[in-house]
Amino acid sequence: MKKIYLDYSASTPVDRDVIDAMLPYYRENFGNPSSTHSTGQEAKAVVENSRNIIASCLGANPFEIIFTGSGTESNNLAIKGFADANKDKGNHIIISSIEHYSVLETALFLKSHGYTITILPVDSMGLIDPDDVKKSITDKTILLSIMHANNEIGTIQPTSEISQITKKHEICFHVDAVQSFGHIPFTVDMLGIDLLSISAHKLYGPKGSGALYIRKESVPFLLPLLHGGGQESGMRSSTHNVPGIVGLSKAAEIAKKKIHLETDHILKLRDKLINKILDTIENTMLNGHPTKRLPGNANISFAGIKSDVMLLSLDMKGIACSSGSACHSSTVEPSHVLQAIRLESDMAESSIRLSIGRDTTEKEIDYIIEILKDTSHRLRRMNKS
Amino acid sequence: MKKIYLDYSASTPVDRDVIDAMLPYYRENFGNPSSTHSTGQEAKAVVENSRNIIASCLGANPFEIIFTGSGTESNNLAIKGFADANKDKGNHIIISSIEHYSVLETALFLKSHGYTITILPVDSMGLIDPDDVKKSITDKTILLSIMHANNEIGTIQPTSEISQITKKHEICFHVDAVQSFGHIPFTVDMLGIDLLSISAHKLYGPKGSGALYIRKESVPFLLPLLHGGGQESGMRSSTHNVPGIVGLSKAAEIAKKKIHLETDHILKLRDKLINKILDTIENTMLNGHPTKRLPGNANISFAGIKSDVMLLSLDMKGIACSSGSACHSSTVEPSHVLQAIRLESDMAESSIRLSIGRDTTEKEIDYIIEILKDTSHRLRRMNKS
Repeated sequence: MKKIYLDYSASTPVDRDVIDAMLPYYRENFGNPSSTHSTGQEAKAVVENSRNIIASCLGANPFEIIFTGSGTESNNLAIKGFADANKDKGNHIIISSIEHYSVLETALFLKSHGYTITILPVDSMGLIDPDDVKKSITDKTILLSIMHANNEIGTIQPTSEISQITKKHEICFHVDAVQSFGHIPFTVDMLGIDLLSISAHKLYGPKGSGALYIRKESVPFLLPLLHGGGQESGMRSSTHNVPGIVGLSKAAEIAKKKIHLETDHILKLRDKLINKILDTIENTMLNGHPTKRLPGNANISFAGIKSDVMLLSLDMKGIACSSGSACHSSTVEPSHVLQAIRLESDMAESSIRLSIGRDTTEKEIDYIIEILKDTSHRLRRMNKS
Repeated sequence: MKKIYLDYSASTPVDRDVIDAMLPYYRENFGNPSSTHSTGQEAKAVVENSRNIIASCLGANPFEIIFTGSGTESNNLAIKGFADANKDKGNHIIISSIEHYSVLETALFLKSHGYTITILPVDSMGLIDPDDVKKSITDKTILLSIMHANNEIGTIQPTSEISQITKKHEICFHVDAVQSFGHIPFTVDMLGIDLLSISAHKLYGPKGSGALYIRKESVPFLLPLLHGGGQESGMRSSTHNVPGIVGLSKAAEIAKKKIHLETDHILKLRDKLINKILDTIENTMLNGHPTKRLPGNANISFAGIKSDVMLLSLDMKGIACSSGSACHSSTVEPSHVLQAIRLESDMAESSIRLSIGRDTTEKEIDYIIEILKDTSHRLRRMNKS
């Protein structure tokens, strides 16, 4: 059976050049960067070279980059590390209602430890209103954490506009850029942020590797989550995952080189996919913003077809995609993101996310459109009978 | 120049079979185990298979294994996660004076957050006296964390004897087995412990991958360090590092198969190395226990030769090993481990660790002995002139 992967937002295959870049650091140059001998120092030099590359991709300084084990760890370190290091200044943190669980659950954890959390609403397209940010600020506010681009509906936030507010009020601005880094061109100054999380495996890099940008002038220190040998300026102890770090930097380098051509290709495919579905399949609807969205993201509701049934049917045809609904035991509840954009429950329960990537072909898009037509007709007929 | 690596305790080259086992999960089967489609579920099955392997190597149940990003993370999660989940029961934690920084610094962090920490002494060979454990227990004691085998001097602790005490007093017993797992045969029941940390890169597996054993009947839950998607029974959120997890389990499987033959080989080389140095180089001394020590560990003081000078000289001859001293700026201060065994400062400042591994040959040992003879004579002559 032909297999088509349309779940690039969940994870990406590692680029061949990234694998080739990583391989020498498993067995040939396998030193521990904390060792003082040449083998260790060679490994250290490789880590620092990777740091330079990531910094350059972000328009940052190398000493502002900390390597972590994942986007989740970066988000946890940014939020808990900043909150714990700055609790004398205030205990109020603002997030949005469509954050990834690694931000949402971290904020809720802090809430149970005496912090006050404001969860900002979004509009029907998933956008945060900068005025809402302004209104929610109190004299206890220390941190705003919002995602650059949403993982489910793809909406891109007006971070630059929002950063004018955080700068004015001297509030730290953390952005979860796990979905956008390498997929939308930006620098940390363009976004105007103080902390920024990235992850390698959303970027054709390896799982188990991420980084956190920390603007030195506004954030001198984060309380570490991992205590120990004092690696990463004392903010993230652990033996450096040298191949993982090399993989992240190589993936970022490739993404930077390819981003414009690749975005054109992906945008063209995505728009064809969205338009064909909306034009040829009845009672379908695009979720998220029509233009301010991730190039590869198509989140579409097929009214009357529960997303889990649709996903299973597509999976049986060899098509991998995901739903905007999280399954809890036997009930399918629409995700917090779809609830936040106030989709009617019929539409929310029938949303699927098709995410397009570097390897997606036009042929695959044509094929999936046919499959979606057939599958939706068949499932709707079954519903009626 | 001939290069000889004698720093296997710092990190190991990844076994070729481990690399081969990992490779398919970068690009061919790259799914996110949290995805519901077949690609994701195939990745999930691989993670669960790896969990079964690790459990079997430890004599544990698969549901008692949590995958982490490193030994440091496992130690942090064990100690902070247990302390935070059990603070209603008490706030007293016992560690030893020769713990790895990831235990020591974590305990000191908890101390700054209201916990009371007892740091047990060790004898001149690095052994903890079980009587000291008994005496340090109060009605507030919740956790004992000690390492199975020391990373610097190789001393193996009497965990089974100590576990009789922790069991009697219903105290959780955490063991950092990062240095011993795969190098000394044991099961979690033989050690009698409740929590146990392991790391892949000390075991011919990849960096960035570790695990924590959690005895279900005594430790139902640990408060997570990483909040998010709820992976690993909610105790360690983050997309699973599938290749890293496969690498850890493959490395553990190989170690289990090879352990007896390999230990014989390594022990023979180590004893030759130690005996030849002590017999043929004046004013040398073995640090740690003569028999209760890691098979690959030789920690030796060369009186009158500062360890950093010795390491540099050896490095220039292509030999990679490490010191038991941590360099702080321009001064070389003996490590907390060497201080804990109360080495005279002259001996503590001149200690080096030679750690032997799977790939070490007898020829290399013969060569290093000659180099050590020459180097120590030369450096001592220079000291005199």
